Amino acid sequence: MTASVPSLSDLSDEARSLLKTQSIELPSWAFGNSGTRFRVFTTAGVPRDPYEKIDDVAQVNKYTGVTPRVSLHIPWDKVDDYEALRKHAEDQGVTIGNINSNVFQDEDYKLGSLTNSNERIRRKAIDHHLECIDIMRATGSPALKIWLADGTNYPGQDSIRARQDRLADSLAEIYAALDDDQELVLEYKFFEPAFYHTDVPDWGTSLVHCLALGDRAKVVLDTGHHAPGTNIEFIVAQLLRLGRLGAFDFNSRFYADDDLIVGAADPYQLFRIMNEIVSAGALAPDSGVNFMLDQCHNLEEKIPGEIRSATNVQEATAKALLVDREALDQAQRAGDVLAANDILVDAYNTDVRPLLAELRESQGLAPDPMKAFLESGYLDKIRSERVGGTAAGWGA
Amino acid sequence: MTASVPSLSDLSDEARSLLKTQSIELPSWAFGNSGTRFRVFTTAGVPRDPYEKIDDVAQVNKYTGVTPRVSLHIPWDKVDDYEALRKHAEDQGVTIGNINSNVFQDEDYKLGSLTNSNERIRRKAIDHHLECIDIMRATGSPALKIWLADGTNYPGQDSIRARQDRLADSLAEIYAALDDDQELVLEYKFFEPAFYHTDVPDWGTSLVHCLALGDRAKVVLDTGHHAPGTNIEFIVAQLLRLGRLGAFDFNSRFYADDDLIVGAADPYQLFRIMNEIVSAGALAPDSGVNFMLDQCHNLEEKIPGEIRSATNVQEATAKALLVDREALDQAQRAGDVLAANDILVDAYNTDVRPLLAELRESQGLAPDPMKAFLESGYLDKIRSERVGGTAAGWGA
Amino acid sequence: MTASVPSLSDLSDEARSLLKTQSIELPSWAFGNSGTRFRVFTTAGVPRDPYEKIDDVAQVNKYTGVTPRVSLHIPWDKVDDYEALRKHAEDQGVTIGNINSNVFQDEDYKLGSLTNSNERIRRKAIDHHLECIDIMRATGSPALKIWLADGTNYPGQDSIRARQDRLADSLAEIYAALDDDQELVLEYKFFEPAFYHTDVPDWGTSLVHCLALGDRAKVVLDTGHHAPGTNIEFIVAQLLRLGRLGAFDFNSRFYADDDLIVGAADPYQLFRIMNEIVSAGALAPDSGVNFMLDQCHNLEEKIPGEIRSATNVQEATAKALLVDREALDQAQRAGDVLAANDILVDAYNTDVRPLLAELRESQGLAPDPMKAFLESGYLDKIRSERVGGTAAGWGA
Amino acid sequence: MTASVPSLSDLSDEARSLLKTQSIELPSWAFGNSGTRFRVFTTAGVPRDPYEKIDDVAQVNKYTGVTPRVSLHIPWDKVDDYEALRKHAEDQGVTIGNINSNVFQDEDYKLGSLTNSNERIRRKAIDHHLECIDIMRATGSPALKIWLADGTNYPGQDSIRARQDRLADSLAEIYAALDDDQELVLEYKFFEPAFYHTDVPDWGTSLVHCLALGDRAKVVLDTGHHAPGTNIEFIVAQLLRLGRLGAFDFNSRFYADDDLIVGAADPYQLFRIMNEIVSAGALAPDSGVNFMLDQCHNLEEKIPGEIRSATNVQEATAKALLVDREALDQAQRAGDVLAANDILVDAYNTDVRPLLAELRESQGLAPDPMKAFLESGYLDKIRSERVGGTAAGWGA
Repeated sequence: MTASVPSLSDLSDEARSLLKTQSIELPSWAFGNSGTRFRVFTTAGVPRDPYEKIDDVAQVNKYTGVTPRVSLHIPWDKVDDYEALRKHAEDQGVTIGNINSNVFQDEDYKLGSLTNSNERIRRKAIDHHLECIDIMRATGSPALKIWLADGTNYPGQDSIRARQDRLADSLAEIYAALDDDQELVLEYKFFEPAFYHTDVPDWGTSLVHCLALGDRAKVVLDTGHHAPGTNIEFIVAQLLRLGRLGAFDFNSRFYADDDLIVGAADPYQLFRIMNEIVSAGALAPDSGVNFMLDQCHNLEEKIPGEIRSATNVQEATAKALLVDREALDQAQRAGDVLAANDILVDAYNTDVRPLLAELRESQGLAPDPMKAFLESGYLDKIRSERVGGTAAGWGA
Repeated sequence: MTASVPSLSDLSDEARSLLKTQSIELPSWAFGNSGTRFRVFTTAGVPRDPYEKIDDVAQVNKYTGVTPRVSLHIPWDKVDDYEALRKHAEDQGVTIGNINSNVFQDEDYKLGSLTNSNERIRRKAIDHHLECIDIMRATGSPALKIWLADGTNYPGQDSIRARQDRLADSLAEIYAALDDDQELVLEYKFFEPAFYHTDVPDWGTSLVHCLALGDRAKVVLDTGHHAPGTNIEFIVAQLLRLGRLGAFDFNSRFYADDDLIVGAADPYQLFRIMNEIVSAGALAPDSGVNFMLDQCHNLEEKIPGEIRSATNVQEATAKALLVDREALDQAQRAGDVLAANDILVDAYNTDVRPLLAELRESQGLAPDPMKAFLESGYLDKIRSERVGGTAAGWGA
Repeated sequence: MTASVPSLSDLSDEARSLLKTQSIELPSWAFGNSGTRFRVFTTAGVPRDPYEKIDDVAQVNKYTGVTPRVSLHIPWDKVDDYEALRKHAEDQGVTIGNINSNVFQDEDYKLGSLTNSNERIRRKAIDHHLECIDIMRATGSPALKIWLADGTNYPGQDSIRARQDRLADSLAEIYAALDDDQELVLEYKFFEPAFYHTDVPDWGTSLVHCLALGDRAKVVLDTGHHAPGTNIEFIVAQLLRLGRLGAFDFNSRFYADDDLIVGAADPYQLFRIMNEIVSAGALAPDSGVNFMLDQCHNLEEKIPGEIRSATNVQEATAKALLVDREALDQAQRAGDVLAANDILVDAYNTDVRPLLAELRESQGLAPDPMKAFLESGYLDKIRSERVGGTAAGWGA
Repeated sequence: MTASVPSLSDLSDEARSLLKTQSIELPSWAFGNSGTRFRVFTTAGVPRDPYEKIDDVAQVNKYTGVTPRVSLHIPWDKVDDYEALRKHAEDQGVTIGNINSNVFQDEDYKLGSLTNSNERIRRKAIDHHLECIDIMRATGSPALKIWLADGTNYPGQDSIRARQDRLADSLAEIYAALDDDQELVLEYKFFEPAFYHTDVPDWGTSLVHCLALGDRAKVVLDTGHHAPGTNIEFIVAQLLRLGRLGAFDFNSRFYADDDLIVGAADPYQLFRIMNEIVSAGALAPDSGVNFMLDQCHNLEEKIPGEIRSATNVQEATAKALLVDREALDQAQRAGDVLAANDILVDAYNTDVRPLLAELRESQGLAPDPMKAFLESGYLDKIRSERVGGTAAGWGA
């Protein structure tokens, strides 16, 4: 039981350094309207184009200091001049992160994209990815991120096996088009929007395809994409062990939807995940794992939602860095079940918010990013300025 | 083990009569476009107004003979002249069934409808139901069906308890406005679109409110609205025992979505459900249980999807009617686990399609409704005629 | 964001009083060996009879100060002289709590107990409960707690409906035998050990039977007895609203087993549950809700496991008492989703261990119960003294 | 819609041949008593040693004709003279199949076996497998089957990563000891008996270890070992595509227990699984996939339970062989969702029991194996003869 609230100086030099250099990529689509199949509710002041989305990303980074990159989604974030977009971002301290393809919102993809038995449509889906690779070059993006809505709704609708084979062929062609310094990361998802089967439902399937492609193909783990009861930190540990965790998408869910604020449903799980990441040394900037948020805010305000998400990840990380690993290892080897568990839980139960406030102040930031942002007047500003035009929405 | 395929004459008089008089209500919204939060794909020839929806309902009834009623959804199916709509339906052998309210697609209902702490919004939601009751009078509808999207996305967002109290108050006012020959049926749903909690998540909650309201308030059980692993036939048996099963919504799902064709995911479960209904005598027309489809067709054709759904329910029913109840009771009392199970499974394994073909022919219908419909040319007709105007969609 | 670690004086008088008077009943069976169907591993020093179990209960109470009652399980805890057992307990500051019946470990109950179609067996099961009521009188126990393993493994094995009716009859006879100051509490469980259906699977079923019995019949909610994704705090709120939450069994589980240390799997859920209890005023000693642990320790030491469980509940309670309810109510009414959630989460993120250490010291207890117990030498003592005889085991 | 009940001659030559040569391995442990953590109920006449277990296996094969192999479990089935056991089996037309190791019922394995951080225990667990390999040689068993109960109950109890590494080391040593004609098959299980994490929880983990070991290491898929909602036939298709499906364990479950009669919970799922197997050509005797039952009978009679299981698999197989693959492929390529689904469902809805009766008669067997066995008097015989001695039980 910790006697008191820890301060920054209670951390080791290494831990402090990891906390200072931690970074989380933001999704451009988190700033537009989003919703469910029942209704997309609107929010005043949402961006109307990719430039305004980047402005909002920069706001989150301005107050948290940990979100210096933005993921783009193509075609939602297509612009005429990517150089201009890149410069717009960099002027505000933000770089372009992953490029996300989208092959699920075109009438042609009703029955699949990279897995479609219709060769014209499959060709179109591959070509879309080649276009994304061009945009990667134009924006300096390091990785192509692929999540597929492909799957079927009814048994027999299509051949599971044939779809796997077509998927492998499609991915091979896309992978071959990458430059040597570009990566491909493949996301899996247990369910939705396909109802009966999805073509990349689990980490095993994603891994199998990545192994077939090559070293620069890695798995994306998204917190919300698992069956109930799945031990996600186990998968993190396994993929890190195999050197194939390419990206980690933060969000959370209670049952079926995966777009709540990270840590909102199960903060202890988030801590356990960060604990695996920290214990495997994967938090370091050069670990090759791209940490990002992938969530949408339906009811809550967008920018505050992203700020809270970033600080939630920071808090879980700080707790994971506080775990007494030597004592833990000793208790584990002694087979002292309760003592080992207690060491982990002790760190989790610690209130790290003062420590993080200290960290921010040491970096010239306000100690409480949410408060500082809400007081900044930015929300009022965009609500009054962003009038007219088409509000960006999930899928736009 | 049955030696051969059973024919209609193998059924008892009572069973044959039940099969002949079975009826399933169709939802008007099954005939428009629908989809997921990712994309609503379009289908050629979908209706553009409630009249055309009823035309399609009538088609399903024409070929299956078991779908003589249609559920309307307000405001989606609002018309100027309900008398005309009613006549349009009746001219084609269809009557208006339940009226479904909709308090989830208006900006005001972002944080709830009948449970909203904002009195203006809660008033508006109640008034919408009073309007629905007027439409019931105009259309001769026997029951007001309420499903609420109400709930919260985050712990603490609102008071669970206070919302229950407001829900009870709202329902009491609505119930009081009903005529003596009108019923209120309250649907529960485990999750979605609310992410953290839903205000009527389970049959217990729905029952608690119905008990508080009075005898004409009953529970709606929707196949797709339960947690994984829930034994739905148990709930059917329990609600029938209590005399509070008001309606049964057929559909199916594999994991999180609930709008697949009934029986498509787990036909054995559908049989077990029908077995409880048959064994409790609840299939009879005067049992007070309204059987209906509540599903949407995203990828498949709408009218064929409804035809297949209706025949799936018929097949499960015919199998349930074939169960040798005397032998079953005997094996159960003898504690012969395998023998009792075998008696049930024997009926399930029987191919009842020839028997149902025979039934249809005895009623002057084609033996294979799907084949007859597909050959009728109706799909070509609506694809060419229903051009221009706004295609009806889920939510429209 | 709390600026610092709260102390006891930061609590309101009422909150402080509630924390001081909080009590948690311990199960006698938590102190014996337990395991899974694969293996029951042994632990040195486990009790060999009910007297030694009570000695261990007293140890937990000695160090935590919050576990002054013990639940007995009949026949596991049958003794010749209940007066002597009662005195043995009271001499150590412990009283006898609920009496738990056991109708699942006799060959006769293979196919059911209170629901069995065999009248001799059903009679035997009822009589067992009447015997339990006698033991209640002898021990001063206030409530009879019934959990049934009844159910079936295969569809058709028995009639779901007939079993409900027999259950109702059996319970009525048992309830009628209670004295006016005795209660009956009925526990539900989603699954296990029955594989296909359980006869009391959900709170709705338990409530339906309690309503039929009378005012002194109430529902037992056990944390581990729900389908995945179930919002347990909702059920707590609903049962409290109805005045029918009779007991709350603490434990936790990740997927299918329900006997882990409370708070071990999802501490945030435990906090949310305690938050509903606190906000409904149900923590007060006279609230009529019996809080107890119902868990077994398979791998970890028994007494330390119970100590950790008790302190986990205390911590969740203290956090719930720290919630700023006025600010929460205001944010909820304002529809400020993030702010409302933040108020709840702020309390959860607070480290209340120092506050609880302060509380214990104010009561003359050691600040860290686990440390104090481990240093007391009691474990060594029982390991050397409790040799020979039959170690108590789960089910013994 | 099939016009009539198909007969054997409606099958293609190849399909008929596959059905005739289909074989399913039986587990020796299915014939002893088994139960849950709550109670193991007894059954009269269960075997008292491995010889009597094989007698019962031979009975199932005598009546079904499809179960000519038996899996042994070591140490449960240890005998002094394996040559004698082998001969005892072969005299009755049964051969020894896989050898199953058991490293979960010894006190030493409380915290793990092949993953244990205690080197002495890990050594002991490895040695146990080497002994199993010796028994394989003595019995002519083709494969060593490993299922591990290893895992942890609490976060932090042990290092997930270190356990994976130790597992890899242990498996490498075991694999190296195999003869060139011996295989190692590694089973995964989502949960139980470990509560927090299992060391081989999913097919991905099993595959990763098999890939590291070599070509003769393959994955075992057990129907009951998945999270709710998992699409098992997808995994079958994927593992067959990779050439790494080593064995398929049949059983079924509704929620958490995995030892019900195969097909008892979801016969349509069983059909879909067999459909993937048939469509991939993996039913052929030389496919390298070992099909077996892995289930225990708690309430029902053992031998009849195994007979029903075998016929359930046969029925699902016959239905899968009836699928019109050409029409299916055409409908799939045409994107006709409903038609494709209908082709699959049409085969499923067909009653294949007469066809299988015909098959049996053509092989000199009784048309109804269950009836023939129950009339044979064998049950009475063993009930009267197998008195005294220790009844075999699950775990014995």
